[in-house]
Amino acid sequence: MTSPRSATVVILHPQSGDPGKPPDTGGLEDLADVRYATGNDLVSALPGADVLFVWDFRSHALATAWPAADALRWVHAASAGVNHVLSPEVVSSEVVVTNSRGIFDEPMAEYVLTLALALAKDLPGTVRLQRDRRWRHRESERLGGRHALVAGTGPIGRAIGRKLAAVGMTVTGIGRRARETDPDLGSVLPMDRLADGLAEADYVVLAAPLTEQTRGMIDTAALSVMKPTARLINVGRGPLVVQDDLVEALAAARIAGAALDVFAAEPLPESSPLWTMENVIVSPHMSGDVVGWRSELVALFQDNLTRYLDGRPLRNVVDKQRGYVREGAS
Amino acid sequence: MTSPRSATVVILHPQSGDPGKPPDTGGLEDLADVRYATGNDLVSALPGADVLFVWDFRSHALATAWPAADALRWVHAASAGVNHVLSPEVVSSEVVVTNSRGIFDEPMAEYVLTLALALAKDLPGTVRLQRDRRWRHRESERLGGRHALVAGTGPIGRAIGRKLAAVGMTVTGIGRRARETDPDLGSVLPMDRLADGLAEADYVVLAAPLTEQTRGMIDTAALSVMKPTARLINVGRGPLVVQDDLVEALAAARIAGAALDVFAAEPLPESSPLWTMENVIVSPHMSGDVVGWRSELVALFQDNLTRYLDGRPLRNVVDKQRGYVREGAS
Repeated sequence: MTSPRSATVVILHPQSGDPGKPPDTGGLEDLADVRYATGNDLVSALPGADVLFVWDFRSHALATAWPAADALRWVHAASAGVNHVLSPEVVSSEVVVTNSRGIFDEPMAEYVLTLALALAKDLPGTVRLQRDRRWRHRESERLGGRHALVAGTGPIGRAIGRKLAAVGMTVTGIGRRARETDPDLGSVLPMDRLADGLAEADYVVLAAPLTEQTRGMIDTAALSVMKPTARLINVGRGPLVVQDDLVEALAAARIAGAALDVFAAEPLPESSPLWTMENVIVSPHMSGDVVGWRSELVALFQDNLTRYLDGRPLRNVVDKQRGYVREGAS
Repeated sequence: MTSPRSATVVILHPQSGDPGKPPDTGGLEDLADVRYATGNDLVSALPGADVLFVWDFRSHALATAWPAADALRWVHAASAGVNHVLSPEVVSSEVVVTNSRGIFDEPMAEYVLTLALALAKDLPGTVRLQRDRRWRHRESERLGGRHALVAGTGPIGRAIGRKLAAVGMTVTGIGRRARETDPDLGSVLPMDRLADGLAEADYVVLAAPLTEQTRGMIDTAALSVMKPTARLINVGRGPLVVQDDLVEALAAARIAGAALDVFAAEPLPESSPLWTMENVIVSPHMSGDVVGWRSELVALFQDNLTRYLDGRPLRNVVDKQRGYVREGAS
């Protein structure tokens, strides 16, 4: 990109609720002309704007408002996943898409470890017994020595692999490209060997981007090759899993449990049977959101905005065909 | 000890409830004359017995039944802590005491990590919200980079130190003897510098044996030097903490929370305010008890019984003055 010297930035934030409006935007306002919009008024905010900051990580509003994007050159997402941004029009356009790769890696890896340990030690059962003032000793499971299959070989999957290996788990990755040895994931199986990976795993961890290859990767067929003692942890995107198939497998105890931070629809509807299943942890899409995360996301965008204004290369440029930042890309 | 060639073993087990009767005792019965007793009939089982296997890790019955121990040479405890066995009469006698050091190290370290992560990520809050089908996003805390103070420099404290360091925590130990560098605990402060250690810690983990030096080490004075954001984790023995002082500090939010696996009285009485505190995890003395633990405890005793019958040195001989197996001892 050539240096634009000035910029008009639209910040797309939710009407209400999580993640609210971005904090610490004074620096952005010093650098550029900033407009705020929700999904409802994005279409009137976009004309003339060259930059869109998709702060609302659930909004698909850009697809609808696309005809109004008459000057748009760059879209930055305040998330690692960008499936909500990548409409066919965006993919086929010249618009550059960047994401917030890096911010969530270590927090999400800690969260996955928390969920795996909580399942192994039945911590939800302990909390439920505590509510009833019931003292009931149980035996728990070791996590060390167990086998984890991590779907996703990007920086989040890698941080998860390192964290689980650090507590003595055996880790295998699964991704687009097979690798016999991998520094973070032990070895990596290609997607067409998913069934082999699932059959070996005590914990299956989903941290893959949502793409046409990964959508619905955990369905009845996949669940049926998992061990009856195995558990599923999803911190990626809800549609990686065919949720009805998972509910059925859990209800029939065909797998031992699940810890889910993401869902087909969010917030998870009150009517979902997942809420009341004793072998399920329902977590409200918070795996990466440690204290200070909003400020870190704004700071990352501000750094990229400075690069944009200076005509320097942007960080975290997404390969729009693939749906994520290619490995080795800055 | 000289080789006794034969032995009469009394197994002291609870009347009912946890930990039940020992499993897999066929091997013991092949080696020795085995009698089973509860606290109520120990006094009639002891005469003529040379070995006592204290399977009931809560029973203080030996102190009362002591006058009947007319042939007792060796007491083995199916636990790491031996305070329930070490009555003044036992300490001043010739009776050898051994414990189950080693069985619980790694399971307990995993359990401590589980509790620390659960507190950092508010997993109990997530479970409570799930019960009410409420989706409420919250920010959570990182565990990496935080500071843990581990009281207890025996094998359990060391396993805990290694596990917490493996996920990026900074670890300091506290024990009888100061060490500037320590392979598992970073450095070790002496007990008289407890206040310094507490003031620095985000997580205070108690894994010390219960001795006259450690009893009540966490009281109002100790709690008052802890950070208001700090949490206490106790997997050692209940009386390491002055429980009423802790309840008061938690109720006044002078510290941020606690995860307790051991208590002044066990099971924790229904009337305890700890059950209903939202910043407290009440866990029923199960930190080391992974699937198979009972069999491992019996196997360890059986190995020691074989050594006893052969006149070979016993494993895990407790220094009765100190109340634990001395470091470097086999």
